[in-house]
Amino acid sequence: MSSPAPVVVPLDLFADPADLTRTLVDIPSVSGAEGPIADAIETALRALGRLEVLRLGNSVLARTALERPTRVLLAGHIDTVPIADNVPSVTEGDILRGCGTTDMKSGDAMLLHLAATLENPSRDLTFVFYDCEEIEHERNGLTRIERERPEWLAADLAILGEPTNAQVEAGCQGTAAAAVTVRGRRSHAARSWLGDNAIHGAAEVLNRLRAFPARSVDIDGCLYREGLNAVSISGGVASNVIPDECTVKVNFRFAPDRDADDAVGLLKELFDGFQVDVLDVAAGALPGLSAPAAAEFVAAAGGVAVAKYGWTDVARFAALGIPAVNYGPGDPSLAHTREEWVSMQQIREMTEVLRTFLA
Amino acid sequence: MSSPAPVVVPLDLFADPADLTRTLVDIPSVSGAEGPIADAIETALRALGRLEVLRLGNSVLARTALERPTRVLLAGHIDTVPIADNVPSVTEGDILRGCGTTDMKSGDAMLLHLAATLENPSRDLTFVFYDCEEIEHERNGLTRIERERPEWLAADLAILGEPTNAQVEAGCQGTAAAAVTVRGRRSHAARSWLGDNAIHGAAEVLNRLRAFPARSVDIDGCLYREGLNAVSISGGVASNVIPDECTVKVNFRFAPDRDADDAVGLLKELFDGFQVDVLDVAAGALPGLSAPAAAEFVAAAGGVAVAKYGWTDVARFAALGIPAVNYGPGDPSLAHTREEWVSMQQIREMTEVLRTFLA
Repeated sequence: MSSPAPVVVPLDLFADPADLTRTLVDIPSVSGAEGPIADAIETALRALGRLEVLRLGNSVLARTALERPTRVLLAGHIDTVPIADNVPSVTEGDILRGCGTTDMKSGDAMLLHLAATLENPSRDLTFVFYDCEEIEHERNGLTRIERERPEWLAADLAILGEPTNAQVEAGCQGTAAAAVTVRGRRSHAARSWLGDNAIHGAAEVLNRLRAFPARSVDIDGCLYREGLNAVSISGGVASNVIPDECTVKVNFRFAPDRDADDAVGLLKELFDGFQVDVLDVAAGALPGLSAPAAAEFVAAAGGVAVAKYGWTDVARFAALGIPAVNYGPGDPSLAHTREEWVSMQQIREMTEVLRTFLA
Repeated sequence: MSSPAPVVVPLDLFADPADLTRTLVDIPSVSGAEGPIADAIETALRALGRLEVLRLGNSVLARTALERPTRVLLAGHIDTVPIADNVPSVTEGDILRGCGTTDMKSGDAMLLHLAATLENPSRDLTFVFYDCEEIEHERNGLTRIERERPEWLAADLAILGEPTNAQVEAGCQGTAAAAVTVRGRRSHAARSWLGDNAIHGAAEVLNRLRAFPARSVDIDGCLYREGLNAVSISGGVASNVIPDECTVKVNFRFAPDRDADDAVGLLKELFDGFQVDVLDVAAGALPGLSAPAAAEFVAAAGGVAVAKYGWTDVARFAALGIPAVNYGPGDPSLAHTREEWVSMQQIREMTEVLRTFLA
């Protein structure tokens, strides 16, 4: 059996990055189905003729080799969360609506446009367009790149095009999830004194959560606010039974001055006396703004950096010793919503800020 | 189409009531499928020739008309919870195992045997064998009898053959169920200070439950212990979302000196500030042991009555102004378990206690 070669969507990387965003949004690329958008990006980058290009699965990498004193890595994921009746895109004046407009095809478009138009940058550049960011860590394109081609990730600064609404968001919080289980003893509800109510026992878990003194930590001028919260609770056997088990799932967003062990240790200590099962933990990323390339970028972007709330792949770069910041168009709180939209003017303005820094 | 007339299982009401229990257990009668056992009971009672018999749905009633100064109503439900590999019955020495052995075919057998063998009782007797006790109130055979033939329920004392393990268990607790809902405001877990965590808010509900001073109330020498408990809790939207709702379902078992309004009022007051939705409420039953017929029965049964824990149909009779007690073979804590069993000797002994009282 033979099938016709797939048609590769042509991308005009020299065009307005807002128009390029629209083209990218209109190529569906839900996690796991990034083949067509990766083909389009690879073809367009190879056509430039100035960059070394590498295809690894559905990730596309490209870099200069200009022997500049510093190298900046510019990265964006090309997948989106599932489409929710919001592809193709819709334009209303300055507003572009659709799946991935915020998270993060506008960031990808900004970086692709710079790859085409920065002919003689002052820094060496590495572009990384990777797949499967919205799903499990093991399938994330960066996981494969780090394992198979780690030399492609070497850099003095990493800029991730995740949405920050025109701010520089430095580093990121860590996140830990755990299940706290309270045990009791069943009995019939009509003879409750023969049992030990596990839901009543969970009051102590909730009381400790309420009393937890969440820190605010200033690092490199960025304020990281911690938060420790129950995100689910469940318990109960039947309407006439005193329950013998109640589970509270907690989520801890911690400042990047704690490492993962410290965060887990805190949870185990706080919930001493209960069963604590760690479900997952990911360290945060220090802002690293004291590194020269990072400080220069913050200056170029207006002089102000704020803390990133939420975990992003900047943590991977921080773990590799590379200062890393988030900088991309769109309001981060719109990510993963059906109503996702981005200002086309903001895409153009942020692209020019990056151009000034890299030129 | 015609089908052969169903075969009615013959019941020997004059035989050993333990043997009769075995026969009844071996006629499956899960709630809603009581036709065959009702047919068997109706046929056997009609064959006695001494009683007025009434069939109402799958309930069977029979009564004497001897112009005695007092009338005792003797009632048992003929349905069981679903069979759990425990029919037919198994005999091991004195032990009879199987679905309904405790709840409450041994009680039915005791009453059927007395219907056959008490030829000249000192009191008028009404026997009520009713269906659908284990399911919703509306389908309960007593609900239909009360609505359509209330004159059949008139009596000076009601004895319900529910399992009491050879004790007289007087009256019963009331029961009330309510959902207590705590509301908050959603936010992303990474920016939890923008939200209001409803699960954390539920700590206050649980703290009030833990601090609730459950009463123990002595009525007619019976000690009713109250209990107010969470029987389920649920809350949570997603692992990265601060939840905006948490619901605690509570169950209140209350002494029969409170009526339903009082119980509901207590719940609303205790959970003031939260949304309280009453799911169901059923008043308890005062023991009524000061009534002459009740006092005489307690004396005949050894002089001691204890409080019934758990709600039973005695509450219906109490609501009709009829003193009502539970008195039947088997350990009540075995009811609804797969391991249900009854002592055959206990069936015989309790039958003789009742005979002495009624003779």
